[in-house]
Amino acid sequence: MITFLSDFGLEDDFVGTCHGVIKRIAPDTDVIDITHGIAPQSILQGALVLANTLPFMPEGVHMAVVDPEVGTPRRALVLRTGDGRLLVGPDNGLLLPAAERLEGIEAAYEITNREYALEPVSPTFHGRDVFSPAAAHLSLGLDAAELGPAVPVDDLVRLEIPRAEIGERRVRATCLYVDRFGNIQLNLTAQQIEPLGIVPGRRVEVELALDRFYALAARTFADNQVGEIILYEDAYHNIALAISRGNAAETFAVKAGTEVRLRVESE
Amino acid sequence: MITFLSDFGLEDDFVGTCHGVIKRIAPDTDVIDITHGIAPQSILQGALVLANTLPFMPEGVHMAVVDPEVGTPRRALVLRTGDGRLLVGPDNGLLLPAAERLEGIEAAYEITNREYALEPVSPTFHGRDVFSPAAAHLSLGLDAAELGPAVPVDDLVRLEIPRAEIGERRVRATCLYVDRFGNIQLNLTAQQIEPLGIVPGRRVEVELALDRFYALAARTFADNQVGEIILYEDAYHNIALAISRGNAAETFAVKAGTEVRLRVESE
Amino acid sequence: MITFLSDFGLEDDFVGTCHGVIKRIAPDTDVIDITHGIAPQSILQGALVLANTLPFMPEGVHMAVVDPEVGTPRRALVLRTGDGRLLVGPDNGLLLPAAERLEGIEAAYEITNREYALEPVSPTFHGRDVFSPAAAHLSLGLDAAELGPAVPVDDLVRLEIPRAEIGERRVRATCLYVDRFGNIQLNLTAQQIEPLGIVPGRRVEVELALDRFYALAARTFADNQVGEIILYEDAYHNIALAISRGNAAETFAVKAGTEVRLRVESE
Repeated sequence: MITFLSDFGLEDDFVGTCHGVIKRIAPDTDVIDITHGIAPQSILQGALVLANTLPFMPEGVHMAVVDPEVGTPRRALVLRTGDGRLLVGPDNGLLLPAAERLEGIEAAYEITNREYALEPVSPTFHGRDVFSPAAAHLSLGLDAAELGPAVPVDDLVRLEIPRAEIGERRVRATCLYVDRFGNIQLNLTAQQIEPLGIVPGRRVEVELALDRFYALAARTFADNQVGEIILYEDAYHNIALAISRGNAAETFAVKAGTEVRLRVESE
Repeated sequence: MITFLSDFGLEDDFVGTCHGVIKRIAPDTDVIDITHGIAPQSILQGALVLANTLPFMPEGVHMAVVDPEVGTPRRALVLRTGDGRLLVGPDNGLLLPAAERLEGIEAAYEITNREYALEPVSPTFHGRDVFSPAAAHLSLGLDAAELGPAVPVDDLVRLEIPRAEIGERRVRATCLYVDRFGNIQLNLTAQQIEPLGIVPGRRVEVELALDRFYALAARTFADNQVGEIILYEDAYHNIALAISRGNAAETFAVKAGTEVRLRVESE
Repeated sequence: MITFLSDFGLEDDFVGTCHGVIKRIAPDTDVIDITHGIAPQSILQGALVLANTLPFMPEGVHMAVVDPEVGTPRRALVLRTGDGRLLVGPDNGLLLPAAERLEGIEAAYEITNREYALEPVSPTFHGRDVFSPAAAHLSLGLDAAELGPAVPVDDLVRLEIPRAEIGERRVRATCLYVDRFGNIQLNLTAQQIEPLGIVPGRRVEVELALDRFYALAARTFADNQVGEIILYEDAYHNIALAISRGNAAETFAVKAGTEVRLRVESE
């Protein structure tokens, strides 16, 4: 089983071509597309979605490609996680948050062995020529160490993940992600905001972009009146903003990276 | 075999995560994605597309998720149809038009058995935590009755499907659906409009939104001159409006729900 | 193994319905979606993407549907290529560039045998009613000659592929394709422009739409400073224009069909 996440989109043939390459090498391997809708070249978004979703995926080989530096000497990697999964992708931080949720990195290898690549390797499409063949061979049982030399875990490139500032009554957070329904995912968890008294039923002042309004902390969208603004814990345990039966991101012109401030009044 | 239809889109990980959940439980089950392009929260569109397409799908488990009330006490359902298929989804009318085309509902069960759910069940993503695991277990042969108590068929939520008004020379219809090519599907069948003399070759006056024009009843797009407006029976036996080699919905600014009036002159 | 390319998009059910039809006939056949993002009715784009990608696909049955003349007497075809693949699609030129890269056409048949179609065949959706069932039966081992009479290869419809004009210091090319990242693929190969001295490191004057600027011939995007305009050989051996970490097509308002002129100064 291989899972596959990328910023390739589905308009072009990039994803289909990678599937073809995998199936030529490993016809009986199943490929699950986690998503290919990561914003172009957004390593952070790719890393967060991969970390959120891999726990729901069957154990196997997990390929992820968001790779703005393709063609430069940035490394191509395979990581073995503590729970025995194999993560394949570029060394730009994309794989690490997921590996950390899967009992950490047990071993890392740089993919250098051209025996398992498509030659000649294109300098612009390692998804096809390097990562897909590596993932396919791994799914057939190839030992990751065959792909190239071990890399010390401390040498791997790490991402900076924006952290929220949390005060006694105020929070300064960042929008990590906006989904199709316009729900605005923040870099906050329920545990972080409970000490401020933000629990279902509480009214919270929100300031973002050009808007300031009150939101209601709630358990789910549909508890509420149509059009009500709510603050809830989403399915990946992040705090998110939504409009019940509406589109919050469109209404407030929010996108990934927008700063969002919360404030609760003293009770 | 599981088929899967939703309004999740493919930009986010919702669909991929459901695939992962299914494959963890039922690694050998094939999943066919009917579409995930249903307009967000459009139960009516989801119900119509499901009813149109299930007859073309292999018999098996058919999961559909368009679920604006997720997290409220609305029921989660499995329906067994007269021809032995199992339909899985929320109790909001989404599944019924399809079931009616598949020899009706033989039995209905509410999914309540948490043994077959992912715990803790998120209040906002039952696609992942309730419907996917239920569908996966059903595909492995689980008896639907194991998922929860029977529900009387008369208690199921039904959708109101807009019906056309048909006079002697006039029709008042509604656009049900606009496809990628801009073809405008109406809530009309060929049988309904034949008595008015609307058969291939006949000129029909059309009034919609801000436009009034003549269309030619035709068998297919390409019978006609480029740019000609035609009225034809589409592949699901609905009457539709198109522009030969053009995009009718864009040209006339039509979307689902737009009223469309037809008029034929006396011969 | 069946591969599938079309202009159907993924918003509607067209692709999913074809998958369903294939799986009803051939439940054990794997279907690889190359892409369904071909611009609506763009036979040329479909033909080029098919030719680029089939060499990366497992040998098997290769269905392609970009079919503006569906419902007219245009032929439905199966081609057997020199390397033993079977290509299925309309007779409008879509399949030929791919067949020519796969050792040419060994035999061509018109699909006329209704025994292998879904009856009644809709005049607007041969993807579902003609091509999918034909591809499914071929994947089960049906002899292509069973589908209908042989067609002389010289009778097949051919596409006109725009050719670049190449002078001593000037090139007049055409944009064939713009991808998700805004990279602009031209109808040029590295071999064609090397004689002009356009090799990595060389500065080239570019004129297109309303813009004139210098681009740097380069090996890959990331060799360069962010924002630099580069001319490089893409993964399918076409010359393309890109902006390093930017979106060239958006910046210069280029789309398929735009004329692009290159000029090098004498050294």
